[in-house]
Amino acid sequence: MKKIVTLGEIMLRLSTAEGVRLNQSNQFTVHYGGAEANVAVSLSHFGYQAFFVSKVPANPLGSAVERHLKSHGVRTDYLLKGGERLGAYYLEAGVGERSTQVAYDRKNSSFSKLEAEEVVIEEILRGASLFHISGITLALSTSLRELVFLFLKKAKKMGIKTSFDFNYRAKLWTQQEASEVIKLLLPYIDICSCGELDAVHLLGLDLVGGSLPQEERLKCYYQKIMKMYPNIQYMCSTFRTVINASNNRLLGNLYVNGELYQSKVHCLEPIVDRVGGGDSFIAGILSGILDGLPTERIISFATAASALKHTVHGDCNPFSKEEVLQFTDTEPGKIKR
Amino acid sequence: MKKIVTLGEIMLRLSTAEGVRLNQSNQFTVHYGGAEANVAVSLSHFGYQAFFVSKVPANPLGSAVERHLKSHGVRTDYLLKGGERLGAYYLEAGVGERSTQVAYDRKNSSFSKLEAEEVVIEEILRGASLFHISGITLALSTSLRELVFLFLKKAKKMGIKTSFDFNYRAKLWTQQEASEVIKLLLPYIDICSCGELDAVHLLGLDLVGGSLPQEERLKCYYQKIMKMYPNIQYMCSTFRTVINASNNRLLGNLYVNGELYQSKVHCLEPIVDRVGGGDSFIAGILSGILDGLPTERIISFATAASALKHTVHGDCNPFSKEEVLQFTDTEPGKIKR
Amino acid sequence: MKKIVTLGEIMLRLSTAEGVRLNQSNQFTVHYGGAEANVAVSLSHFGYQAFFVSKVPANPLGSAVERHLKSHGVRTDYLLKGGERLGAYYLEAGVGERSTQVAYDRKNSSFSKLEAEEVVIEEILRGASLFHISGITLALSTSLRELVFLFLKKAKKMGIKTSFDFNYRAKLWTQQEASEVIKLLLPYIDICSCGELDAVHLLGLDLVGGSLPQEERLKCYYQKIMKMYPNIQYMCSTFRTVINASNNRLLGNLYVNGELYQSKVHCLEPIVDRVGGGDSFIAGILSGILDGLPTERIISFATAASALKHTVHGDCNPFSKEEVLQFTDTEPGKIKR
Amino acid sequence: MKKIVTLGEIMLRLSTAEGVRLNQSNQFTVHYGGAEANVAVSLSHFGYQAFFVSKVPANPLGSAVERHLKSHGVRTDYLLKGGERLGAYYLEAGVGERSTQVAYDRKNSSFSKLEAEEVVIEEILRGASLFHISGITLALSTSLRELVFLFLKKAKKMGIKTSFDFNYRAKLWTQQEASEVIKLLLPYIDICSCGELDAVHLLGLDLVGGSLPQEERLKCYYQKIMKMYPNIQYMCSTFRTVINASNNRLLGNLYVNGELYQSKVHCLEPIVDRVGGGDSFIAGILSGILDGLPTERIISFATAASALKHTVHGDCNPFSKEEVLQFTDTEPGKIKR
Amino acid sequence: MKKIVTLGEIMLRLSTAEGVRLNQSNQFTVHYGGAEANVAVSLSHFGYQAFFVSKVPANPLGSAVERHLKSHGVRTDYLLKGGERLGAYYLEAGVGERSTQVAYDRKNSSFSKLEAEEVVIEEILRGASLFHISGITLALSTSLRELVFLFLKKAKKMGIKTSFDFNYRAKLWTQQEASEVIKLLLPYIDICSCGELDAVHLLGLDLVGGSLPQEERLKCYYQKIMKMYPNIQYMCSTFRTVINASNNRLLGNLYVNGELYQSKVHCLEPIVDRVGGGDSFIAGILSGILDGLPTERIISFATAASALKHTVHGDCNPFSKEEVLQFTDTEPGKIKR
Amino acid sequence: MKKIVTLGEIMLRLSTAEGVRLNQSNQFTVHYGGAEANVAVSLSHFGYQAFFVSKVPANPLGSAVERHLKSHGVRTDYLLKGGERLGAYYLEAGVGERSTQVAYDRKNSSFSKLEAEEVVIEEILRGASLFHISGITLALSTSLRELVFLFLKKAKKMGIKTSFDFNYRAKLWTQQEASEVIKLLLPYIDICSCGELDAVHLLGLDLVGGSLPQEERLKCYYQKIMKMYPNIQYMCSTFRTVINASNNRLLGNLYVNGELYQSKVHCLEPIVDRVGGGDSFIAGILSGILDGLPTERIISFATAASALKHTVHGDCNPFSKEEVLQFTDTEPGKIKR
Repeated sequence: MKKIVTLGEIMLRLSTAEGVRLNQSNQFTVHYGGAEANVAVSLSHFGYQAFFVSKVPANPLGSAVERHLKSHGVRTDYLLKGGERLGAYYLEAGVGERSTQVAYDRKNSSFSKLEAEEVVIEEILRGASLFHISGITLALSTSLRELVFLFLKKAKKMGIKTSFDFNYRAKLWTQQEASEVIKLLLPYIDICSCGELDAVHLLGLDLVGGSLPQEERLKCYYQKIMKMYPNIQYMCSTFRTVINASNNRLLGNLYVNGELYQSKVHCLEPIVDRVGGGDSFIAGILSGILDGLPTERIISFATAASALKHTVHGDCNPFSKEEVLQFTDTEPGKIKR
Repeated sequence: MKKIVTLGEIMLRLSTAEGVRLNQSNQFTVHYGGAEANVAVSLSHFGYQAFFVSKVPANPLGSAVERHLKSHGVRTDYLLKGGERLGAYYLEAGVGERSTQVAYDRKNSSFSKLEAEEVVIEEILRGASLFHISGITLALSTSLRELVFLFLKKAKKMGIKTSFDFNYRAKLWTQQEASEVIKLLLPYIDICSCGELDAVHLLGLDLVGGSLPQEERLKCYYQKIMKMYPNIQYMCSTFRTVINASNNRLLGNLYVNGELYQSKVHCLEPIVDRVGGGDSFIAGILSGILDGLPTERIISFATAASALKHTVHGDCNPFSKEEVLQFTDTEPGKIKR
Repeated sequence: MKKIVTLGEIMLRLSTAEGVRLNQSNQFTVHYGGAEANVAVSLSHFGYQAFFVSKVPANPLGSAVERHLKSHGVRTDYLLKGGERLGAYYLEAGVGERSTQVAYDRKNSSFSKLEAEEVVIEEILRGASLFHISGITLALSTSLRELVFLFLKKAKKMGIKTSFDFNYRAKLWTQQEASEVIKLLLPYIDICSCGELDAVHLLGLDLVGGSLPQEERLKCYYQKIMKMYPNIQYMCSTFRTVINASNNRLLGNLYVNGELYQSKVHCLEPIVDRVGGGDSFIAGILSGILDGLPTERIISFATAASALKHTVHGDCNPFSKEEVLQFTDTEPGKIKR
Repeated sequence: MKKIVTLGEIMLRLSTAEGVRLNQSNQFTVHYGGAEANVAVSLSHFGYQAFFVSKVPANPLGSAVERHLKSHGVRTDYLLKGGERLGAYYLEAGVGERSTQVAYDRKNSSFSKLEAEEVVIEEILRGASLFHISGITLALSTSLRELVFLFLKKAKKMGIKTSFDFNYRAKLWTQQEASEVIKLLLPYIDICSCGELDAVHLLGLDLVGGSLPQEERLKCYYQKIMKMYPNIQYMCSTFRTVINASNNRLLGNLYVNGELYQSKVHCLEPIVDRVGGGDSFIAGILSGILDGLPTERIISFATAASALKHTVHGDCNPFSKEEVLQFTDTEPGKIKR
Repeated sequence: MKKIVTLGEIMLRLSTAEGVRLNQSNQFTVHYGGAEANVAVSLSHFGYQAFFVSKVPANPLGSAVERHLKSHGVRTDYLLKGGERLGAYYLEAGVGERSTQVAYDRKNSSFSKLEAEEVVIEEILRGASLFHISGITLALSTSLRELVFLFLKKAKKMGIKTSFDFNYRAKLWTQQEASEVIKLLLPYIDICSCGELDAVHLLGLDLVGGSLPQEERLKCYYQKIMKMYPNIQYMCSTFRTVINASNNRLLGNLYVNGELYQSKVHCLEPIVDRVGGGDSFIAGILSGILDGLPTERIISFATAASALKHTVHGDCNPFSKEEVLQFTDTEPGKIKR
Repeated sequence: MKKIVTLGEIMLRLSTAEGVRLNQSNQFTVHYGGAEANVAVSLSHFGYQAFFVSKVPANPLGSAVERHLKSHGVRTDYLLKGGERLGAYYLEAGVGERSTQVAYDRKNSSFSKLEAEEVVIEEILRGASLFHISGITLALSTSLRELVFLFLKKAKKMGIKTSFDFNYRAKLWTQQEASEVIKLLLPYIDICSCGELDAVHLLGLDLVGGSLPQEERLKCYYQKIMKMYPNIQYMCSTFRTVINASNNRLLGNLYVNGELYQSKVHCLEPIVDRVGGGDSFIAGILSGILDGLPTERIISFATAASALKHTVHGDCNPFSKEEVLQFTDTEPGKIKR
């Protein structure tokens, strides 16, 4: 089992049943998730030894996070306990034309107050094949930003692959701030998840004419980015068409060696839970690359993984590699008996 | 806050979970609602001081109604307690091709036995901007019919706007009875919600040729009605295309000064709960008129309010004016984070 | 009330809520069902006196089966108690593109160990109008196979109609085994439910050219089968187009006197629970035949019954004959109030 | 299987979860029950062919009652369909010091409007061993009162045993009314359930001095009653000590041939659901008498049946004769594995 | 209706079902409560016009608080919206020998950051009969402490009664801090809820010999305190004997004019939810005083109110004055029908 | 972290809500447990590295077992996948006087068919401090019996402590069979959990006179057993007084060096879930011994652990060593805030 390390925040998600508003509900469903934790969970289900590095409070919620991760096979050896609180968010899932609404309560979380010196970077990375991080972690504090750079530099020294997902959140930092930090970080990255808007607004690329088909525009952006950061080997993203909150179309893109590979279009209808859809896509990409799959197979596997995620509650993709492969290769919706 | 008064019956609604029949269920979900009560709730969420005038029994169910109304900010100062029982109905929600089924048990309710002299009309109307009523109240008893006329006459004297929703229910009275009463009542009405079928079957208008597009037919009817009742300033209705019980299309119509204004078509799919969809539409119309919105804005606001209602359980539209406006102005289904 | 007899296995079905995987769930929904039991339940709701012959353990689950059948009006006079266990299966319902998954645990069930001599065939069949069986029972043991032949021979002697549903399950026996047994059985059958794949793989008919429309192909197969088994009077099946696990199209076929009768196409969206959809179709066919409906009416009734089944949870079709007829004759999804 | 007939009203019971008030609850648990229906259910579980005679509306709730009865094996051949509504009541179960509260909504029920001529008394009683009735039915209408007398007279003519439970409900009729009717009825009764308060307030017996132990007082009353109505062979009742709503003590009394037989004291703690506790006691008495058990055994069986009922939700005692006997004969609370 | 004002924090309470630990639960029950908010709710149910002054975030949780308060009839005219977050706590309710465990996450709440100048004290107090506060508010910030003193001084000037509940929480401040603040505050208080431990540890009274009966010790303390603060007219507290988490004994004490009045002992078994038990006691005391009840009646009313609270879920006492009085005057646990 | 190994069967437990019978329930709560698995879970929560050796099917239920164990931190490195099925049992929990009822369906489980050669005994035991087994495993098959002896012999060779819990189940084997096997096994055991009945019926000790106090009798038995098997160092058991199914008294016994140490008596009321109470006791004993606690402390710790288990749902004791110690040292039921 290859070892993989991800670093990030994990939060408590409190959500209501379908068709019930947050301010009316006398019951909240409990999930735990965060971008990098979700990637670790997916990779664990894909057969990797995934370690999630983070910090949670030494209280029942911290303990719940530990249980959650362990139940998915994620190693919690470097899950620190301490600090004030677990970040939380409240989610009122959209239905039909009505959008999902999220209320965050994540400030002052144990992870956001994590100091670089609490973490034994070298020990954590020893023997790892891959280190993955997302832009959310960079946004939380300068101390975490510093920690990420320490991890990336050490990873590069140790010959470990690195992966970065832009995951820009306007509620956490400005485009200006994000742009500066990410530009410094990209030289350390091998695999990068980045969308059109990221390319334009965070990397400052010129807008490509809207008359071009979407995939041509994306190729332009990816070509330019790879020229700027020749260390990047893979770039990926999804095209999501939002028909409404219960009905999306999803297609995955993977760019490598100057070629764009696309998956088929998945019809996500009805959507059970969209949260974590992007994380499961990236985990699929990483798994495919580490497994040395053919490129067309990587992108179809990753998009299938993401499509499956949309059919289950929770932030995590609980499907095994075999299940995703079987799903990739068969007709949708057939009963097996 | 402008004061609004509605008068009507509120009932206990007992419904089953999706895909469970009434005669199999060992659990009923509890809601409280009624046409005029629902309008009051919507208007309260839109920022008006809404009073709901009614009578409920002096038992835990009457108390539950009070809690329900108060929790939505509706004033219960004129909610009388007494009489025998709270009307109830049992609802088995439709799914896909299967229609919703309703079993009523509303006879002998406290409200249906309400006598005109129990109500202090003048005090209730004092300071009000609008009085709203629906055809259901007229159908329940001659005493209530009399009460409604007393209210309308007093309202007209006091310079208060009046609103009437046909809301014809064949289980409560015949078309003949309804027709007679409503024709006497319309001279007191400023804002009127009336559909094509109402125009033909209750007001006795000649059927307009089916070769005309639906909106042209509606315009004909509205023109004629306004000629008959020049006091009416606004007429409104919705066009609902029922693809199946889980999937409808909805468009709103508002006729004023000889012009028909239409909203965009809302795709209601999936429908969480259709009950109260009409009431939230009317509340949107009333709110738009009282706010002095431009006419196109009134009809798009009202139809959006109704569309949102279809995405939540219960008879009530719990969305604030700001939420409806934001929904009116944005793409459907986008996540906000 | 005409008496009808069905013989087969009934199992415990344990399933999870939508969007929850079997290995994550701390709650299972409990249903009881089996092909022939489901047919009996449907026929009971259609006004027949349906007897279900089977064997269940003398424990709380056996008692639960009895309660289940009785609650649907099915007579349990010949439901034997004894043996080791009730067969069970675990179901993770599909959503959207994700298929339903089933894990069986049915071996060594009380029914599968039933010996022919435990059953008083003549008494059971006395006064019956119809005896129905499916291929699942044939697959479970040689003893049950023998029992089925005894029933069929006796039924023919007593002038009782017989019905057989192929219901081939690859997990229970090979095509080779099934083919041999079924060929011996068909000479005793009056009404037969058999699909295209059954015709080719189990009856060994030559594949009809794919360029023909599906209904033409089916006619060819049915014509040939009826030539081989001139005793068969009715053949039926459904065409199901699986758009995804939540969205199917369904059309019913009934072949009699050299003519194929087809129902309209039902759009099953969303599907609440697909299990038992075939059984309710057959029950509709049987009811229509026994009632002497016109052929077009039989097939529209049967397909409507099956479409309705997809809108409720559980293996059983709980709709009465009146409800199915009303559904057959009205627009889908209209609210009745 | 001996045939038994009971006649009475069955109602919808809507109750809340423990610790939740009726006016706060958004979920009601659904049960169906009524004094005589509950007796029929118990006797069905004890192995008798119990027929319940009543009238319920021809709507989903009437159908639910039918399902309920059938699921317990009660024969519904004489359950009429029609009339306006199913009576209902709302129950907020007590906990600890807080008492249970009940809000009735039973007026105008289909049963209360039943006319004697709708019922084919002779056919119903044919072959029966016992006819059972309670005071509630007498209280509902003069027509029902008349019907009960017709049943009793016919039963006496046909040599059928009769049983009567006082079940006095102050909300339904006055002591004066009840007294007059019951005195006319007792001459037709063989088995009578009657408490101390009934003896004093409804039969007008002189209060026996409080210095006597409770069982001595009861003996006095029973002796006098049997002198007045020498046709009565058995008199029974329970002594219930209410420590609080969750904790009661229960002891059963059976008086026959001038001797009082008492069960042991059952400690009912915690009480899951007290409704129907009396009905299961009477069913136990009737079953014991019909089975010809020794008198000590009858009273211990009946009280054990009632004690068991307190441990399950719903109005009905779902325990078989074997289960009650095993319970009667073993230590409380021992695990069996 | 007399007007009453309370000021304090209200929090989100997330709790698990009985017998489920916080770190295992995938569902949290949602309640809202806080010491002073709970007092306001009780007083609203007792027929007072209760205003709750606080600050909650302008997000769905703030809106949920508003709904919660309104549903209980509490006036939210002075409920400010803004700030960062709603304080929250996680509760794992004890059962039997196992204690309740609480994890707080209340720092940086909107209320804790409230500044005195945001509040229009004079307007709020205008027309009020009583102002109530607890020690928790004093502990949250110096700014809130200042605000409380402003309120108390203004109240005294305006002739408004004041009430103070010690409610010492060791997790919020030290005994030393609390002692200093409370001593400065007591001169403004008319009604004071203070226990033995408060008297010793916060007011520094000498420990009274343990050989004295508990009520004698309490009298000593109260006598001394009233000598120190002659402005105080009423002192109250409860004696709670914890047999285990599900079984307590509760007795109320009220000291006035040198006399100690005690309620009967309530046996709280089983306890449904203990949170808010103290607040409902104080609300009972305040209601009794404002109603001018005889002193023995005040203390029996208040303790009964608290006992009832223990039988329902949530922080609030939802019983009306009539219900509490009826409970005070009747046998525990009797069914009413 | 010391390594501990347990070997045994783990089953699916399906149970109903309180007060609901198995044959009425449409929902089953899902738990996974087994004697040795439960011991492993407890020891994992006490800070040991616990390995559970077993075999489960390669289906969603096998996967659910894996999730369950991992979520409690138990290592599943030696959890084999294969075979036919997961054993299951159905549990109707007792309440008050009504006993718990269990229906087993465990035959032909993957574990019961496990062959000795599938297990790499030496690798599994390498580095272990303790090997624990119960009598249930011995009862399941001769192959498992053989496997247990191989484990024990190897453990003794490797200097690993061994523990055995009699756990006699009459449904699995006769006393005669059990007696023979256990007598051969005891010479390999260091720590032995054995009750009075086990001593008499399985080890054939003479019954000690009933006039002796229970602890004196137990001492006699333990003295004799230790004379017969001088290798045994610790003997333990609990005295459980069953007041009813919801109310037990529990006291723990530990016999070492000729002395009997007893815990205090725990009042278990109400009991939330009794299953696994014995396993958590043994885990407490083992933890105490491995930690080198003083003997009085071991027995109080173990009994406290068992008492806590009774307050939570499921087979497992989810309390950490710190939580058990805190519970051991404090008053029952006090709230901590």
